[in-house]
Formats: sequence, C-alpha cells, structure tokens
Amino acid sequence: MGLKQSYAIIGTGALGGLYGGLLARGGFDVHFLANSDANHIALKGLQVETPLGDFHLPNVNVYSDIAKMPACDVTIVALKSTLNHLLPAILPVTTRGGGKVLVLQNGLDVEADSARVVGEDRVLGGCCFLCSNKVGPGHIRHLDYGRIVFGEYSSDPYGKPAPGITERAQQIEAELREAGIDAEATDDLLLTRWKKLMWNIPFNGLSVALDASTQEIMEHGDSLALAEAIIREVHTAAVGLDVAVPESWIQKQIDATKKMVPYDASMRLDYRFGRPMELDAIFSNAIEAASSAGIAMPLVGMMLKQLKFLNSRNLKGSD
Amino acid sequence: MGLKQSYAIIGTGALGGLYGGLLARGGFDVHFLANSDANHIALKGLQVETPLGDFHLPNVNVYSDIAKMPACDVTIVALKSTLNHLLPAILPVTTRGGGKVLVLQNGLDVEADSARVVGEDRVLGGCCFLCSNKVGPGHIRHLDYGRIVFGEYSSDPYGKPAPGITERAQQIEAELREAGIDAEATDDLLLTRWKKLMWNIPFNGLSVALDASTQEIMEHGDSLALAEAIIREVHTAAVGLDVAVPESWIQKQIDATKKMVPYDASMRLDYRFGRPMELDAIFSNAIEAASSAGIAMPLVGMMLKQLKFLNSRNLKGSD
Repeated sequence: MGLKQSYAIIGTGALGGLYGGLLARGGFDVHFLANSDANHIALKGLQVETPLGDFHLPNVNVYSDIAKMPACDVTIVALKSTLNHLLPAILPVTTRGGGKVLVLQNGLDVEADSARVVGEDRVLGGCCFLCSNKVGPGHIRHLDYGRIVFGEYSSDPYGKPAPGITERAQQIEAELREAGIDAEATDDLLLTRWKKLMWNIPFNGLSVALDASTQEIMEHGDSLALAEAIIREVHTAAVGLDVAVPESWIQKQIDATKKMVPYDASMRLDYRFGRPMELDAIFSNAIEAASSAGIAMPLVGMMLKQLKFLNSRNLKGSD
Repeated sequence: MGLKQSYAIIGTGALGGLYGGLLARGGFDVHFLANSDANHIALKGLQVETPLGDFHLPNVNVYSDIAKMPACDVTIVALKSTLNHLLPAILPVTTRGGGKVLVLQNGLDVEADSARVVGEDRVLGGCCFLCSNKVGPGHIRHLDYGRIVFGEYSSDPYGKPAPGITERAQQIEAELREAGIDAEATDDLLLTRWKKLMWNIPFNGLSVALDASTQEIMEHGDSLALAEAIIREVHTAAVGLDVAVPESWIQKQIDATKKMVPYDASMRLDYRFGRPMELDAIFSNAIEAASSAGIAMPLVGMMLKQLKFLNSRNLKGSD
C-alpha cells in the first residue's frame, strides 16, 4: 500500500471535523479548511465526542486562507452543497499535482460541481450514514452510525454497468479503516446515492415541513404514513432508472429511523439557523433524474415547492 | 310570500354574527345561540363592521342555553363542523314544529350531521364566499365578498339530476336579499360545494402548512404553482364525479385570490388559536368522494396527512 496519503478536509463541520479528526488521530497528514472557527481550532484544537472514543487534537493544521493550503493526495469535500460555488477557488489548490477528490455531500450528482473543476476522472463520491452535529467552535458531537460508502463517480451513469472498485478507492478504504472509520468502497455509487435519498428526501423534508424531529415523525400515524409514501415514491423512481434498490430497503429506512436516537435532520438545523437548505442536491436533482426517464414524483415535487417557499422566506429573515 | 320567517342562528361567529346581524337589522325575528360572548352580546349588543355599512344592534335575542331558544322557521347552522357533535342537542329544539335547517358550513357533505338529526328532507346547504373575522366579543369585521349560494341537500347526489330550486329555497333567498345579503338559490348545491372546495382545499391547507397568508402564497412562485396544482387536482376529482365545474374556474380561483385583500384563511386562524381544524369536512370528505369513484388525490392526501400531524400536535399544546 506504500506511503500514507495526505488529506485535505474542505469544511470542518459535523462531517469534516469527525472524519478528518479521526484521520489526524490515526497519524495521517491532514489539513483542514475552516471558516468561522479556524482561529479557535488553531488555538484550542479540535474536540470530538464520539462513540468510537472521545478525543482532543491539540495541534491541528487548520486554514482559513485557501492559498496557504498544501496540495494533498485526497481532498475530501465536506461542505454543504449550497457552498459549491466556492469549489473553483479551492480544489485547484488542494489537488494540484493530480490529487483526487472525494465528495461526501448529501444528494444526487453533487459531484458534478467538483468534476467541472478537476475533471470527472479524478472524482469519487460517497454517502455518509451518520448522526453528527457541530455543537460549538471546533467541537463535534458524533451521536450514532458513521458509515461511509463511496466509489467512482460518473456524470452519466444510468443504464451503464457500474465501474469496478478501483485501486485508488481500495487504498482510501484501507486508510479510512485504519483511522477507525467504518468505510466501504462500492462499485455502484449510484445505488448508494439513491439508497441514501430514500432517507434524506422524506426525513429532511418532513422535518422542515412539519418542524419535527425524526422521533415525532415516527410517532404520529399520519406523518409516518406520509414518510412511507415518500420513501416509496423515491424507490419507484430509482427502480425506474434501473437503479436496483431492493424493495426491502423501504422498510429498512422506517425501522432504522424508529431505532435512531432522537435527532434533528441536517436540513432542519440549516432551516433553524437561517442557512440555505440543500434543496437542489437532495430534491431537484432527484426529480430531474426521474423526470428524464418519464417518472413523476408528485409527493416529492410538492414537498420541494413547500421547502422552496420556506427557504426563501427564511433567508429573507421575514418570517 | 306571506309572513317573514323567523331565524335561529347557531353560532355567533364571523359568519353567523354577520348574516344573523343583517337579518336582525332587516327586521327579521332572529335568535342567536352564542357561546363565550353570550353575556357580552346580551349587555352590549352586536357590533358589525361591513362594507355594506357598519351597524350596531343594541338589543339582540341571544342565548347560551339551547333549552331557552324558541322554535324558528329556519335554523342556520353557522358552527364550525368540528362542533357538529353538538347538533343533536340543538336542532331538535330550534326546528320543533317542522323548521328547516340551512347548513352554512365549509366542506363537503357537512349537511349529513344535521340530516341525521332532523331528516334529510328538511335540510338545505350553502357555501359562503366571504372574508369575515370575529375580532372581539360580539364584534364582527366583514372585510370582503359575502355571497351565499345555497340549495337543497341530498346525501347521495352523484350522478343524479340536481333537484330544482324549491319554493322554500326561493323564500329564503328573497328574505336574505331583503336583508341586504347577496344570496342565490341554486339547483345544484353539489356543484357549488366543489367550486368552493377548489378554494378551500388549496388556500386553507397551504396557509397552515406554510404558515402564510393568501398574499404570501400568491407572491411566491413555488407556493403559487403548488396552489395551482392542488386546485387542478380538486377540479379533476370534481369532473371525475360528474360535477361539471368549468375548467375556467381554476384560473378564476387564482385571479380572485390575487385580488383578495390580505386575509388569513379560517383554518389558519383555527390553527393559530389552538382550535381543531375542519379537516374531515374540507379534506377527508373530498378525498373519500373522489376515491369512491376511483380517483386519486395524491397532493390533497399529502396535505391532509401534514395537517393531521400539525392539528394533533397543536391540540396537545406541545409544539
């Protein structure tokens, strides 16, 4: 496997802070791009609470100025996709010399923005199945789960055979695991993305539309029925696009969410804190993909319109 | 036409207070059943602000005890349909001797509860197209519109020829008009009900789901598109049930709402004040009628599930 790769972490939030922190703790050369709390992290380090064992990193390579970041072998994009307009200024710096990009953002085809900057052949994408929040400057609280499933990205994957698991994916998988991360390389990123959408679309959407935690949604018969109907609609779209999510995945989402610790979906937190919601990545891209195959998503479409209204009013601060 | 009929007004709110007030001002013998503000009205009378000309009625026949009410020729049911469980105690008193019932409640088949008490042949129903609010005890503020369209009720009207305009409907029409009310007897109550649903379902529903006024809904592209899609779904259901609402009625609802003075739909007020929403009358009954003819209403169904969740949480007071 040779030398350990170096990692650039773009976005030191609930996700980048956790995975980057674990990599740094594991002895990897990790460089974090942070925003509001860069100074805090430089002074006080990074605090991570996790079921994997709490830890504190006193000395962190943290940057607020992209120009000062070194080139790294792997750049992990852990920004909200609503900030993807920043990528053209970031990725050429951290990937110079040919580094790879691993996009760990929510939604569908979210790798496209990175691919436009560095070229599709240097991009991998992945889904994170985790409950994690940033609870303060340089302070990450990882609550539950933590799996990353990732693989090679293609901008036009429908109806094509999935690429195999490449050597570079295997190397990243091995290194993430060495750092204690539950990582799995897959030969079918698209399948993984649609599986994740079957959680993200219903539960992020309903948590905002109903102003409710996942627990509240699961406890009330009508919201549970609605979540199920939406999950089913997403599943139907996936299957119609030749993405073979098994039927059993529908019930699995329900069961897993019932067992989940009470948790605010990320979109609910974004809405609450007046941040833009990832509506394009999670909703519009799915509706468009389905529509291109002639598949309607009436419930998801209705939810998107509601969320767009709420998002627009929220950002105006005129609620 | 003979003697003027006497009127019992069941519910002295935004609707009963306005129409009953106009009848009383017009010299009719009117008896109001009131709840929280019965004493206030007995002492201070009824205050009505209306584009028809503000007026104050100092001496009002108002009751909080149903047992004290006289029998009347016409009983106008102007309660929220969520209070229909009270009708078996009320209607036998005010209709004894054979009085008729005119049900002016929102929704579909809302006359059924009255019909079960007094018999279907004594029941008429009507829709009110008005913006009116109760702004304080015994104080009604009528803002805009005001039309009542009413006709004979049938519990099983689909696919049957509409009944004609009966003599008793003509008499009520004449009297309401004499009182200055824009009243119209129709031979097709069902058509009127479905036309009204094409406003009530989208705008009451969205005003609660989005916590928005009709104006906000109309001003944002996504909520407007959603309102239009829902109106269209209701129209499709009506047509599928052989209720001949013209296609042009869709655009009329949009246009009328755009021109409407900024207004909180009644369901939004109910929600805000912690009162139960009229979900069965306005949503469930429409979905069931459509379903009985094999017509699906996915958007309205989704909205109903959201509203049921919100209603249940609201009534628990645990928001």
